[in-house]
Amino acid sequence: MDLQALIDAASTRDWDTDPEESVSMAVVGLGNYARNVSIPAIEAGDYTELGAVVSGHPEKADRVAEGHDALSLSYEQYAEGEEVDAYDAVYVATPNRLHLDHIRTAADHGKHVISEKPLEATTERARAAVERCEDAGVTLMTAYRMQTDPVIRALASFISHGGIGEPTKAMGEFTFDVLGGSSGPDQWRLDGELAGGGALMDVGVYPLNTTRYLLGTDPVTVDGIARATEPFGSKSEDPGSPRFADEHVHFNVEFATGAVGDFTASFTGKADSWLEIVGSEGRIRIENAFGVNSDREVRIDTDAATVELSDWGLNETVEEFDYFAHCLLTGTPPEPDGHDGLVDVQTMGAVYRSAATGKRVSVDMGPARSGD
Amino acid sequence: MDLQALIDAASTRDWDTDPEESVSMAVVGLGNYARNVSIPAIEAGDYTELGAVVSGHPEKADRVAEGHDALSLSYEQYAEGEEVDAYDAVYVATPNRLHLDHIRTAADHGKHVISEKPLEATTERARAAVERCEDAGVTLMTAYRMQTDPVIRALASFISHGGIGEPTKAMGEFTFDVLGGSSGPDQWRLDGELAGGGALMDVGVYPLNTTRYLLGTDPVTVDGIARATEPFGSKSEDPGSPRFADEHVHFNVEFATGAVGDFTASFTGKADSWLEIVGSEGRIRIENAFGVNSDREVRIDTDAATVELSDWGLNETVEEFDYFAHCLLTGTPPEPDGHDGLVDVQTMGAVYRSAATGKRVSVDMGPARSGD
Repeated sequence: MDLQALIDAASTRDWDTDPEESVSMAVVGLGNYARNVSIPAIEAGDYTELGAVVSGHPEKADRVAEGHDALSLSYEQYAEGEEVDAYDAVYVATPNRLHLDHIRTAADHGKHVISEKPLEATTERARAAVERCEDAGVTLMTAYRMQTDPVIRALASFISHGGIGEPTKAMGEFTFDVLGGSSGPDQWRLDGELAGGGALMDVGVYPLNTTRYLLGTDPVTVDGIARATEPFGSKSEDPGSPRFADEHVHFNVEFATGAVGDFTASFTGKADSWLEIVGSEGRIRIENAFGVNSDREVRIDTDAATVELSDWGLNETVEEFDYFAHCLLTGTPPEPDGHDGLVDVQTMGAVYRSAATGKRVSVDMGPARSGD
Repeated sequence: MDLQALIDAASTRDWDTDPEESVSMAVVGLGNYARNVSIPAIEAGDYTELGAVVSGHPEKADRVAEGHDALSLSYEQYAEGEEVDAYDAVYVATPNRLHLDHIRTAADHGKHVISEKPLEATTERARAAVERCEDAGVTLMTAYRMQTDPVIRALASFISHGGIGEPTKAMGEFTFDVLGGSSGPDQWRLDGELAGGGALMDVGVYPLNTTRYLLGTDPVTVDGIARATEPFGSKSEDPGSPRFADEHVHFNVEFATGAVGDFTASFTGKADSWLEIVGSEGRIRIENAFGVNSDREVRIDTDAATVELSDWGLNETVEEFDYFAHCLLTGTPPEPDGHDGLVDVQTMGAVYRSAATGKRVSVDMGPARSGD
């Protein structure tokens, strides 16, 4: 792939087969992100439509459903399989620690699933979600929207074809100033129990997963440092207190190819996100990398030329749901599947263990045997 | 310090007291850097002049000395104190592993010393250099040119006055493509014995030391990963074979303030260098950060404004030697003193131990007791 091919690919779906059907989605969990990003993307998609919404707040569910000509269900109704014919597939957007329950329900009813990232709060639960979907013969996709962005897909292809020589290292950051005024997250993200951790689980997963995707490799060992100040690291036993170690996390990942990544994520501090991939003959830098539909800028600097890409025009969340529907309609396994999500949860569990023990941790040897 | 004061300070010496004398320098070691960067800086300085050059190659020494109206000495003549009245102070620019010998000689003759970074190849030898100079009552400065650059000095002051709120993390990289065509280093940098290591000792020290300076804090623990391919990691016993673990190094540093830095350095790969400091209310990014007299660009992004500085006009190596001379002439202890250099060598020794053992290493508990 040459640079012109990269530029052309960056504004084009590489997977589109134009199926003449669409997939009706049930959206489980109606937090800010689901209401303001995902549902509009499902409505805007070529191959998706909104069939049902599921929430613990009946009034909110009714309000959202009405506005979109969809059914409204309570969690109990969803769990009991009411109106299962109104949707073909399920989008799980609840707190991380609840994904497994809703994925199980979907699998029980033979529905395919796209689950928000991280796949679950612990390796054990993420693995259970993957295995349950495999047993039920339903598709499980992890909602890594970076992997359905045409530019990121084009970059992965460019790298795999030697565009920057041998990739040697990756660096990245996602600082999301939760308390200081970045666009407000749903509050459960600050609950260590529901989220499975802090900044690592919520935002650190982006540079980790995107690097894995761009380099086509998986982690072998990790080490990490986590820090938290009040209120994040509070020892308070008050119900609802946010308690996690990683207001800030720094972690190194040794990948199977020999490349190494060093990444940092924070829940406080001046916000920014970026990713940089270095190879023997070039480097790629992505500015404003991980915010949803953010104004990304990509700079590709090779021995031959420097190219800057921006404003690539396709909405990554529309791409995400359309890609999921395309996979279902064509029988194609999604690239960001359940196993992909499991590898990240497992890797992040290893980072937490490294941060707690001060030792480099093998990703395979750790939570893969004992859960975490 | 407000942003305007920062901008003003960035183009001004903050230490100048205009002494009416100058310091005559002996330059020990005539490699590329000494000949092409340091000697011209000494000649250009307000308070420095070249008194003598010392080399193992008499013809080279004579040629350099002639061109600069200076004496020419062999290493033996220097060690024996010949022509000691021709210079007031010594600049040591030999391979790292030889710094101590030449620093000892200078101290024996009551000469002040500025030594290239890293201060030595091992903690034990770096500490011996510091102690010898203390015992002799001579000044020892480590040649950290970043610390005498007016912009970096202005940034340190800006940060210490709360310009970016509470500093929480630092990230940085120095990739110097030694084999691939970056401006050629002296070959001893590829000799693990003479250099004390690989990319970490030669270029990784820049983001480490500059972060320590900007944040005004020292390392407490480190962890690191080092990787090398042929020829760097060769096990060959051939004389002259480069052998070190760190063609690539990634390391995290926990600082005493609670801030954490993650840094990477490489001897191969597409070259670049940068440093980024993140605080609760702002961030600072330095592009083209560490190359000598490179075209740096600094972006300061605070809650109040974004400022970009470039082309600050003062030559950092002229500043470095003039600052050293200023310190001698005014009896001011230099900020980048021998202890400053020792802390970095000690920290890097801990990174190497972490890379070898897979464990986070306390900087104080390690090489401080046993040497390395």
